[in-house]
Amino acid sequence: MAKELDFLTKRSEDYSRWYNELVVKADLAEQSDVRGCMVIKPYGYAIWERMQRLLDDRFKATGVQNAYFPLLIPKSFLSREAEHVEGFAKECAVVTHYRLKTNETRDGVVVDPAAKLEEELIIRPTSETIIWNTYKNWIHSYRDLPLLINQWCNVMRWEMRTRLFLRTSEFLWQEGHTAHATREEAEERAKLMLKVYADFAEEVMAVPVIQGVKSETERFAGALDTYTIEAMMQDGKALQSGTSHFLGQNFGKAFNVTFTDEQNQPQFAWATSWGVSTRLMGALIMTHSDDNGLVLPPRLAPIQVVIVPIYKNDEQLKKVDEAVNPIVEELRKLGISVKYDNADNRRPGFKFADYELKGVPVRLVLGARDLENGTVEVMRRDTLEKETRPLEGIVQYVQTLLDDIQKNIFEKARAYRDSRIYECDDYEEFKDRVKDGGFFLCHWDGTTETEAKIKEDTQATIRCIPYGFEQTPGVDMVSGKPAVARVLIARSY
Amino acid sequence: MAKELDFLTKRSEDYSRWYNELVVKADLAEQSDVRGCMVIKPYGYAIWERMQRLLDDRFKATGVQNAYFPLLIPKSFLSREAEHVEGFAKECAVVTHYRLKTNETRDGVVVDPAAKLEEELIIRPTSETIIWNTYKNWIHSYRDLPLLINQWCNVMRWEMRTRLFLRTSEFLWQEGHTAHATREEAEERAKLMLKVYADFAEEVMAVPVIQGVKSETERFAGALDTYTIEAMMQDGKALQSGTSHFLGQNFGKAFNVTFTDEQNQPQFAWATSWGVSTRLMGALIMTHSDDNGLVLPPRLAPIQVVIVPIYKNDEQLKKVDEAVNPIVEELRKLGISVKYDNADNRRPGFKFADYELKGVPVRLVLGARDLENGTVEVMRRDTLEKETRPLEGIVQYVQTLLDDIQKNIFEKARAYRDSRIYECDDYEEFKDRVKDGGFFLCHWDGTTETEAKIKEDTQATIRCIPYGFEQTPGVDMVSGKPAVARVLIARSY
Repeated sequence: MAKELDFLTKRSEDYSRWYNELVVKADLAEQSDVRGCMVIKPYGYAIWERMQRLLDDRFKATGVQNAYFPLLIPKSFLSREAEHVEGFAKECAVVTHYRLKTNETRDGVVVDPAAKLEEELIIRPTSETIIWNTYKNWIHSYRDLPLLINQWCNVMRWEMRTRLFLRTSEFLWQEGHTAHATREEAEERAKLMLKVYADFAEEVMAVPVIQGVKSETERFAGALDTYTIEAMMQDGKALQSGTSHFLGQNFGKAFNVTFTDEQNQPQFAWATSWGVSTRLMGALIMTHSDDNGLVLPPRLAPIQVVIVPIYKNDEQLKKVDEAVNPIVEELRKLGISVKYDNADNRRPGFKFADYELKGVPVRLVLGARDLENGTVEVMRRDTLEKETRPLEGIVQYVQTLLDDIQKNIFEKARAYRDSRIYECDDYEEFKDRVKDGGFFLCHWDGTTETEAKIKEDTQATIRCIPYGFEQTPGVDMVSGKPAVARVLIARSY
Repeated sequence: MAKELDFLTKRSEDYSRWYNELVVKADLAEQSDVRGCMVIKPYGYAIWERMQRLLDDRFKATGVQNAYFPLLIPKSFLSREAEHVEGFAKECAVVTHYRLKTNETRDGVVVDPAAKLEEELIIRPTSETIIWNTYKNWIHSYRDLPLLINQWCNVMRWEMRTRLFLRTSEFLWQEGHTAHATREEAEERAKLMLKVYADFAEEVMAVPVIQGVKSETERFAGALDTYTIEAMMQDGKALQSGTSHFLGQNFGKAFNVTFTDEQNQPQFAWATSWGVSTRLMGALIMTHSDDNGLVLPPRLAPIQVVIVPIYKNDEQLKKVDEAVNPIVEELRKLGISVKYDNADNRRPGFKFADYELKGVPVRLVLGARDLENGTVEVMRRDTLEKETRPLEGIVQYVQTLLDDIQKNIFEKARAYRDSRIYECDDYEEFKDRVKDGGFFLCHWDGTTETEAKIKEDTQATIRCIPYGFEQTPGVDMVSGKPAVARVLIARSY
């Protein structure tokens, strides 16, 4: 992995290229030799692991338990729920055989035609069908409800055009699948999980999100309602960062999941499902990072503080080591992840650039002169500001600084986003401006025709009917028909 | 999930049936409708999650980082390493197509013949090939080594006869793949990871294991040496619980992974791989459990302490609640997982039996009379012993008791195993006794012929050439030829 550190394309030059380069150069992920499937490298995976852990804690705090369901789904399951199959079943990996055999020239393997499956199996693109087929045996009485289950797993959707983290054929995610006795309880759960996602995005990832509900066109295949969180990337495009679906009784009916209610009457169970994926890595990267590389919120940074010594000889290094070791120890006691990079294999300037590229939130630099003066140089990655601080009290200072960085990058991202949310009432103006990115709040008449026309004319879509904005009725900018509310329209990833 | 609690088949009646029933009735796992694939239920998954977390900590303490590699492997990769393909490539799930389409009658889906892959993809049975194909790009200089990477994932091997946890087509595991500059370092790593597994098995799972090295016949396909930990189940059979492989330069050569050494000479990298899987759940269950159900080591128990109130009316319950709540709080402060089951939906006797079935290590029962006397009934799951203790100091008592149970079930399992390890020098006697289980230490001449004959005659195999036993040369009990050491022979899962 020794390589020359080269610079990134600037965002202003080519945003898309900047992203692709950053993901690879910061050692987050890379394309594999398997079409559309990525390798998540150790540094990228360490960030994902922290996301998983913190999300998982939040799920469990709402009563959710983890479980594991099969990777493969019988083909016939997919067609049980009619809308679901329309939306999902088409582009997926199909297992048709279960054995290879040595070829005739004995230098390779071929598929054994004798080992053909009676029914083909699909690698899960999502698991509603296999899970509801299982719930059938788990749910008998209202006492068995609610059932609140999540799984962390890999899924596969055969994508033709892929981009690391944002759109890959295989990706990692969690999918929650809950079953309830009443419609109200299921709807409440779907909304609760959206709130869990929104809080996680804002508090942990420092990514501000707009919560809302999808239009019918943009709903999950088989859902009665899809709730979403939408984040704005630095190019003004939207990135759907998490969705939570109220599925009604569709899967209950498709898989015959009934329970006897308190009046001893049979009822179909009510369902939700909700998921976030490694796509969140894309949201994280594109919200905060800059032309020097990754900017990470301290709560997700695998290394929160890096300490780099400056020295001319072994004697000087030994003195710096002696000063640094107790600082490292104290920081670790506070639960702060710290790396003291006193390795002799790279010059300090190279180390600086590399840790900037990797988004380490705080850098401390200590040299011989600092030791004399009792000082240390502190650099914060979010603003790249450097200052010289007294060594005494540096541990507490760093602790406060990490909180400050977490807060600052959130505020910065929010201010940026808010500056690019526009109310717009004129379609010509909209068409002109939407090319340059931004979120547009526009009145919508609620018809799929208008929605389709906007998409065709501009590639922009209705991201959601947002919460948290004051709504007044108006006139649809496309059709001129009455509209009860403004919706959020943007181009998206 | 409401169901009548029925009793288990006794181990003495039918050990195999006892196991199958226990796994299902204790809510650990069940068969899915997908052949050979299991559903890991929340209670079973909670145990697996604890195993994962604790193993992962131990891996990281040795410098290992996690990453993620693709699920699918191009068919041609499998034939790159000749021995590897012989051992592995045959029984696996083959992806041949990437699209479905609606059928002619529009009521189902069929595989789209137009979407046939040029090269078939295999669902990973293990990931040496795809990972070493990636390492090729990561390793250039000795400075890039060692590379110490692990992944937690699902794998698939098409099994004809499956048993929950012990042998399933899809299973969960971790696979570590390391690359080194020298043979010595790689061998050391392979042995180190075996030690990590052995320590985890004994200290966390309370499962005593014998460490050793496999015979050539039993080696992993592509390995120069396979190290193993072997545990004895209660029927005297061996269960291979974890393996660590020294792979030499086989994969380095097959995937052309070279580095320049300190003398600037090109060298092939040296490899290890090592893994444990959900099979460990089977080892855990079959080592400790009894005719009442699961017995769990406290370090892996999702619920370590359950408290059940006895009451005749709401007023009594309220008083018990008041006494129990501070105990719950104090236990939690000590990091002890505790459940206070004051739900009114099941009689105490039913609760007792259910928590016994689920292996909760400690049960506290509190009734009106206990409140008067300032006492509490304590039951430990491992011995089923009950005693009445003063309420005062109960929290410290429980904490000590949990440690004691952890230690006791390990000692019990070790004593049982040790009582069934036999030195045997007579093949007729061996053939007669091996049917009843047990580990046999026998001199072996080192030939595959002898090994094959033993297997054919008795179904028993050489589990390993064990460490930790004093070895003296002798005579092979089958061939009569000289033998340098005794090997461990047993029937196995």
